[in-house]
Amino acid sequence: MAIRKSKKENELGFGSKTSSQRSRLINKDGSFNVDRIELSSWSSTSMYHSLIRMRWAKFNAIVFVYFISINLLFACLYYFSDIEGLKGMEAVTERDKFLEAFFFSSQTLSTVGFGRLSPGSNMISTIATIESLVGLLGFALATGLLYARFSRPLARILYSKNAIIAPFRDGKAFQFRIANKMSNSQITEMNCRVTVAKLEEENGVLIRRFRPLELEIPNILFFPMTWTINHPIDENSPLFGMSSEDMAKADVEFLISLNGFDDTFSQNVSTRYSYTHEELVYGAKWISVFSTNEQGQTSQDLRKISDYQAAKLE
Amino acid sequence: MAIRKSKKENELGFGSKTSSQRSRLINKDGSFNVDRIELSSWSSTSMYHSLIRMRWAKFNAIVFVYFISINLLFACLYYFSDIEGLKGMEAVTERDKFLEAFFFSSQTLSTVGFGRLSPGSNMISTIATIESLVGLLGFALATGLLYARFSRPLARILYSKNAIIAPFRDGKAFQFRIANKMSNSQITEMNCRVTVAKLEEENGVLIRRFRPLELEIPNILFFPMTWTINHPIDENSPLFGMSSEDMAKADVEFLISLNGFDDTFSQNVSTRYSYTHEELVYGAKWISVFSTNEQGQTSQDLRKISDYQAAKLE
Amino acid sequence: MAIRKSKKENELGFGSKTSSQRSRLINKDGSFNVDRIELSSWSSTSMYHSLIRMRWAKFNAIVFVYFISINLLFACLYYFSDIEGLKGMEAVTERDKFLEAFFFSSQTLSTVGFGRLSPGSNMISTIATIESLVGLLGFALATGLLYARFSRPLARILYSKNAIIAPFRDGKAFQFRIANKMSNSQITEMNCRVTVAKLEEENGVLIRRFRPLELEIPNILFFPMTWTINHPIDENSPLFGMSSEDMAKADVEFLISLNGFDDTFSQNVSTRYSYTHEELVYGAKWISVFSTNEQGQTSQDLRKISDYQAAKLE
Amino acid sequence: MAIRKSKKENELGFGSKTSSQRSRLINKDGSFNVDRIELSSWSSTSMYHSLIRMRWAKFNAIVFVYFISINLLFACLYYFSDIEGLKGMEAVTERDKFLEAFFFSSQTLSTVGFGRLSPGSNMISTIATIESLVGLLGFALATGLLYARFSRPLARILYSKNAIIAPFRDGKAFQFRIANKMSNSQITEMNCRVTVAKLEEENGVLIRRFRPLELEIPNILFFPMTWTINHPIDENSPLFGMSSEDMAKADVEFLISLNGFDDTFSQNVSTRYSYTHEELVYGAKWISVFSTNEQGQTSQDLRKISDYQAAKLE
Repeated sequence: MAIRKSKKENELGFGSKTSSQRSRLINKDGSFNVDRIELSSWSSTSMYHSLIRMRWAKFNAIVFVYFISINLLFACLYYFSDIEGLKGMEAVTERDKFLEAFFFSSQTLSTVGFGRLSPGSNMISTIATIESLVGLLGFALATGLLYARFSRPLARILYSKNAIIAPFRDGKAFQFRIANKMSNSQITEMNCRVTVAKLEEENGVLIRRFRPLELEIPNILFFPMTWTINHPIDENSPLFGMSSEDMAKADVEFLISLNGFDDTFSQNVSTRYSYTHEELVYGAKWISVFSTNEQGQTSQDLRKISDYQAAKLE
Repeated sequence: MAIRKSKKENELGFGSKTSSQRSRLINKDGSFNVDRIELSSWSSTSMYHSLIRMRWAKFNAIVFVYFISINLLFACLYYFSDIEGLKGMEAVTERDKFLEAFFFSSQTLSTVGFGRLSPGSNMISTIATIESLVGLLGFALATGLLYARFSRPLARILYSKNAIIAPFRDGKAFQFRIANKMSNSQITEMNCRVTVAKLEEENGVLIRRFRPLELEIPNILFFPMTWTINHPIDENSPLFGMSSEDMAKADVEFLISLNGFDDTFSQNVSTRYSYTHEELVYGAKWISVFSTNEQGQTSQDLRKISDYQAAKLE
Repeated sequence: MAIRKSKKENELGFGSKTSSQRSRLINKDGSFNVDRIELSSWSSTSMYHSLIRMRWAKFNAIVFVYFISINLLFACLYYFSDIEGLKGMEAVTERDKFLEAFFFSSQTLSTVGFGRLSPGSNMISTIATIESLVGLLGFALATGLLYARFSRPLARILYSKNAIIAPFRDGKAFQFRIANKMSNSQITEMNCRVTVAKLEEENGVLIRRFRPLELEIPNILFFPMTWTINHPIDENSPLFGMSSEDMAKADVEFLISLNGFDDTFSQNVSTRYSYTHEELVYGAKWISVFSTNEQGQTSQDLRKISDYQAAKLE
Repeated sequence: MAIRKSKKENELGFGSKTSSQRSRLINKDGSFNVDRIELSSWSSTSMYHSLIRMRWAKFNAIVFVYFISINLLFACLYYFSDIEGLKGMEAVTERDKFLEAFFFSSQTLSTVGFGRLSPGSNMISTIATIESLVGLLGFALATGLLYARFSRPLARILYSKNAIIAPFRDGKAFQFRIANKMSNSQITEMNCRVTVAKLEEENGVLIRRFRPLELEIPNILFFPMTWTINHPIDENSPLFGMSSEDMAKADVEFLISLNGFDDTFSQNVSTRYSYTHEELVYGAKWISVFSTNEQGQTSQDLRKISDYQAAKLE
């Protein structure tokens, strides 16, 4: 008995020390809300992973800044080593000479190599040789990064803004809705697991326990539309008998793990999400996502995925 | 009981609202026939996925148009900002000057950089620097797109044009045939699941139910030839006792999900297909795909994959 | 009973028609020995797969020939459209002019673009623009091809040249040996399945049946050394009581399917192999692959993987 | 019984001959400590795998040396075939001419092609054509190598320096700690298997046996923090009743196999590790990795992952 409890408690990997924490465990982007003191502040692999996971705006900005910085660095090398060895230069002022060095650098790094400016001394030739290698490898890196970024399944699942406690059969159920954001890329064989994290009093101490919630339908073969994940709150449910206030007091958080098979890239994908008790609406039911147009055609409207209406619970 | 029914009904992910729909659920290319109102009309990832899934002719056309458009855009930038700063230009008329700007742009974007035309002013140099970066990233994207396109398993399985109801042992069976289109790339450990979607009357209402069909052989280790998928219609079958007219009335659709392991790219692959009742031939048997040549050698002829002949059902 | 027999017979996917075939079912490179009449003789994806699977010598030759051919094609375009528009040309004779066109083409296709030769007319500029796009896409293709070629697990498993029937405990066993060819790349969680294909007389007709062989150890966690796959021939074995002549008469072929997890590319890999009865040595035992050097260190010698010695069977 | 023993002994794939070996079986980097005499000393795929697995410093050095070597090779070709055919050369001395040939080579290999130096004879043009192809393919290779290097899970798991025998409930337990080194890249659905290799006396002979250790929690869904892998030493444990001296005498080695799902690259990952009896601390307990700062915030400190203190065992 003690062993099984301990198993349920730990199987998520959060450990017992998190019981004192009163902020959410899983962030909205699926990362874990954990404070860590790292071993070392930097590693190339870690940087690569960051570049894959960050937003496009930030990624593009970093690529641009990096491209300019490398060019500036090599412009300085050309300028301070042997600027007169840069053949074809027409600049007279120092400022213009540096600009020429910068543009020569960019033509070398990108391997365009127009040739109006060209290396005319061994020093400049040597630096240009190195810069072209740096350019090629940097571009090889960019190719891998772009491929990895696009083949990631991040942010393809649309979750309803709230989870709800809805009337269900003779009782209640915990529910949330998801949809596939992309109409042109299928996810199949989806599987969902939901765990509730809640504070429980044991021998007078509040301890955060992790309890799995049994789902009415834990996996579906196709995922063409929306899917309402449904946990009926029966006597076996860890939510059984809990009022809205009980849930707030127990600081409940619903941890969601979704797996599926991405049809476009032929790989398994996995995402995480969570709802805290602040995001839980007690006593509600979903508004249908289906709408019928004038021609009588039925379509589903993804903009309605989070829409619910109040519903009385027995 | 009610729960198990509901499970069977929903496990495909189509939900109950589709019961009113009388068109097919799964299109011939494996996509789902669902009307959706999207959240937003555009996202970079969604576009990337479209570029991976579209036909080659369309893909090539888009790449070409995109290449020309980017060149036109930068040609305009060069032309309207500082066309006299483009060194080496020999054009006299405005039309020819614009053409020179266009060709200079294409030489910069592709990083060819012949150098007859070269940036001769800071403005032109700056634009060219940016264009070469755009060119490199665009090419990095193209590399990823081509790799992803070729490593997709799309359209590698050849399905017989029709499914048939064939005589089988003392009764009948639902059958269709598949073949591996590519002789030089193996798919192994194939697994097939077939579900029939049919309208059933419950309390006077027609509801679309999804019933799994048990297959005689649901998976095979190797897939060197054709494979006839066979569902014997015995008393446990949801098709038991249904005549051709019953099937039409119930608007049956056979939903097929195939999984396997792609030997060339070492990844799992998954495809979908469906047969509607219009594509079902009631009372037929397959004509063998094997043929023997003059030397007595046996070979299979993929062109016969859809060939059947009428057969009397008991 | 009839159903289970049929299952065992078909689960490999070879079907029943192969019973008439007296050549091997699986070739030494893991491909299937099946004659096929294809639907169409060509598809881009099929060509891509071929390029991934062929030998390096052939691949390199094709890349080289393709590179030269494209250059020749564009050289002709330049030569016959507007050779005088090629600026910087110093050739006088027609032969030299064509050569210049060829070298200009290669400088454009590879995006080197030295610029001694440069497009001097709209016609030449236009063709060069298209050629640079062709070059970029061709190179993008090559990148994907090289990556796919190197990440393939092909030919990484070394099989013993022969399988043997060896004395084992009080009886006999079917055995073969495998090794990981690469010392610097691990395969873990290996799983082996062996099926024997043999002709069996049923109602006076010879039919090829596929019978699984139960292995003493069907999977191993690590694969650091050699692995002797061992099927004890007990009363449940389909080989039980068969003499060397029986096996020849039954035209036995041992079909092997190996799966594992490739540690370097983090993907599942799968290979196939087969031994025919001509490759089976009846009455033999393996010579140890371990050898001890002068310092008393034990090492395994992969060159001995196929070495066996005669052994008397009870 | 005899069969099951044999299975347990062999399921790791190390075989029985390793019983004489008294060095570790698995190295700290997860490779196997096995002496092998290879079939052949070189293969392109094997080299590619090495390039993926080696350290960054070595990899970068090899890329640089390779780039310089290829350039030197082609510089020699240009120099000794027809150096006067290199147009634009300004060098007078032979040494400078060779340097020009070298820089021209680097501009061709990287496809920069400034054009100050350009091929002026058919011989030089032909060599340059080949060099540009070599450059393009070399770069295609580099792209694949960089992608493969970064997508490898190597060295992402941090293991505690020692394993310990700790007091646990009424008895003892074998324990070690792991952490995810990367805060920005999740590993989920982790699974751990531990096997102990120990010398056992059978009929007077010492034979190395491989015994699986049952873990209190063999898998966790999330891995946000540290994970203490715990094997309670009860009467079913192969370590039951063994003193520190017994373990040294039996030359115990704990072989660890970890699997999980890498969230960034959407692929399964697998690592290996081992602790020898010299790395085992008998009688210790872990010091918590959690620390609280002045603001009362709890964070885990990865630098403490290996910290333990002496603890008395019952």
